[in-house]
Amino acid sequence: MIEPGQSRPAKSDFSGRKIVYDEDGKPCRSCNTLLDFQLATGKIGTSRVQNSTQKISKAEPYAKDDPPDVELLGRSSWNLLHAVAASYPKAPTDLQKTEMKQFMTIFSHVYPCWWCAKDFDKFIRENAPRVDSREELGKWMCDAHNDVNRKLGKPIFDCNLWEKRWVNGWD
Amino acid sequence: MIEPGQSRPAKSDFSGRKIVYDEDGKPCRSCNTLLDFQLATGKIGTSRVQNSTQKISKAEPYAKDDPPDVELLGRSSWNLLHAVAASYPKAPTDLQKTEMKQFMTIFSHVYPCWWCAKDFDKFIRENAPRVDSREELGKWMCDAHNDVNRKLGKPIFDCNLWEKRWVNGWD
Repeated sequence: MIEPGQSRPAKSDFSGRKIVYDEDGKPCRSCNTLLDFQLATGKIGTSRVQNSTQKISKAEPYAKDDPPDVELLGRSSWNLLHAVAASYPKAPTDLQKTEMKQFMTIFSHVYPCWWCAKDFDKFIRENAPRVDSREELGKWMCDAHNDVNRKLGKPIFDCNLWEKRWVNGWD
Repeated sequence: MIEPGQSRPAKSDFSGRKIVYDEDGKPCRSCNTLLDFQLATGKIGTSRVQNSTQKISKAEPYAKDDPPDVELLGRSSWNLLHAVAASYPKAPTDLQKTEMKQFMTIFSHVYPCWWCAKDFDKFIRENAPRVDSREELGKWMCDAHNDVNRKLGKPIFDCNLWEKRWVNGWD
């Protein structure tokens, strides 16, 4: 459990940095910065970390950023949706299956770009979310994304590689 | 209605570019690129558009990007959540209220970073999503974001400015 006021549940320290782990004892990719994750998995050494620490801890006041346009909103949303699929259980409970179906349906109702939302709603009606396992959901999400790629004339992603792109990385 | 296979519902052309409009007849910010939106609202002239058109239409093959880390996932998710609040109806139906509450609750169950998800779940239990209007939801989302900012030692955003940041822009 996370105590109130605790910003990060550190189970281990590594060179003074706090690394967050998953239940299986592996470093959690979605819970750490890329730098911390690479450090904890031995992909980079401490020399690179020391050079970049200062940049991370420096808090800037808020810039006057404009609301996200359709492209930033799209990239942002796919980042979230694929990551949600990547962290979905390999053997979900009935409640988790129901909630995931609800989540995708409501997503198609509340997505801010109305024409994107209608397209996604149509895709879901014709291709019900496959929620029986992480593998199924990950590939379904990849198919959904490719449906949009096709409409926008963007390159099609090879869904056999979805785990490399969204779960494990390419190494 | 969007016809099958149509990638974008263009109600108007402007210098050969397709601009998507909201039901109220105004250019839709979440439905267009920032460039198209600025063009349609007269904020920039056509000379800037011609210089940047080539860059936009060039489709690159997929780079071997790694799965999002906690920071990219966080930025992406706040982009989506604030934009969802920004496009929420000013006078939502009961169904829309129910779905928004469900969406936020399920979000706190499926968010990939488990410690972030637990914190968000706790925030929601102590601060039920305010879904009676866009204004309410927008400010609630801003409060939720500041709760995280506070825990991470990041600057606090002035929630009186939420519409400038997430709905209308700063001009």
